[in-house]
Amino acid sequence: MYEGAVQDLIDELGRLPGIGPKSAQRIAFHILEADKDDMLRLAENIRTVKDKVHFCEVCFNVTEAERCNICLDVRRDPSVLCVVEESKDVMVVERTRSYRGRYHVLGGSINPMAGIGPDQLHIRELLTRLSDDTIQEIIVATDPNLEGEATATYLARTLKTLGIKVTRLASGLPVGGDLEYADEVTLGRAFEGRRSLIG
Amino acid sequence: MYEGAVQDLIDELGRLPGIGPKSAQRIAFHILEADKDDMLRLAENIRTVKDKVHFCEVCFNVTEAERCNICLDVRRDPSVLCVVEESKDVMVVERTRSYRGRYHVLGGSINPMAGIGPDQLHIRELLTRLSDDTIQEIIVATDPNLEGEATATYLARTLKTLGIKVTRLASGLPVGGDLEYADEVTLGRAFEGRRSLIG
Repeated sequence: MYEGAVQDLIDELGRLPGIGPKSAQRIAFHILEADKDDMLRLAENIRTVKDKVHFCEVCFNVTEAERCNICLDVRRDPSVLCVVEESKDVMVVERTRSYRGRYHVLGGSINPMAGIGPDQLHIRELLTRLSDDTIQEIIVATDPNLEGEATATYLARTLKTLGIKVTRLASGLPVGGDLEYADEVTLGRAFEGRRSLIG
Repeated sequence: MYEGAVQDLIDELGRLPGIGPKSAQRIAFHILEADKDDMLRLAENIRTVKDKVHFCEVCFNVTEAERCNICLDVRRDPSVLCVVEESKDVMVVERTRSYRGRYHVLGGSINPMAGIGPDQLHIRELLTRLSDDTIQEIIVATDPNLEGEATATYLARTLKTLGIKVTRLASGLPVGGDLEYADEVTLGRAFEGRRSLIG
């Protein structure tokens, strides 16, 4: 539709997640009109991320070194491992400031429809990490959706024979939420997981 | 929040129009995980657009040459000029296939709140284009909003003394729309601009 390079850029931007044709066009024109140095810096950042950032050889979190900051931090509790789907989930858990163990990033969740089975995830590497008996508990923090639950179930079954404690994050009512707006499944889980207040 | 380069990229992406912090993070992780060649091509496209694409010296549409394809096309009617706010509006009008004249891109609209007055737009260059008497009609196709109307009014006042026909795109009901959902201003304009069906 547009001349050469502009259309190429719109096409490339349109392939990014959550960016439709209209947004791609808007962003392309912004890039065209914005300060040249700012935009060259953006291009350079994309290049840097692809050149320098990769996945931690231990936990598969993103890092610029061979091992990520969390794996290198000796103050972290080595006996607990929180298993998440994606690198960004590490940050989500970190923000709670209530977890002091280490992580293992699976790189996704089991999703047969998308052709992702256990072999496409970093589950083999997880089993290798468990071989030296340092890890006492695995907290499965995959997403509370169909794929995340399937992954949690698969992990529970796989780890059962190893004699390690395997836990799953609690499902229930979101704090600050309203009972009226809770869906039935969540409310059902909240009943199942109810805790004693007295005695 | 993240280590060096990833956070830099999230920050840069978050400055693009319509991309909030969550989207910026999602896109950054997509860039991290996507095929390296694809992402380097995106970076290269941004660079190419900034290096090669600029504004037509006649009409200020985007082009990779000194003059855009439309200004160079001798089959276009040189006597009619469609004045639009942005380069992307040229494409919007082109898509209708009902206009065969040339364009003039103002580079925005008059918006005193944002510090954009007539001097910040390509109005002086428009007046220069009118000096050789080739242009017989100017169609003002600025947006039908406050800033676009202010720009149209300013242009009409400025061009009045030149003896050139100045027209404005019709306001009225969108085709395929529903009378019930038309706002009062649009409906009022539709009444004002009503056309005779018989005789």
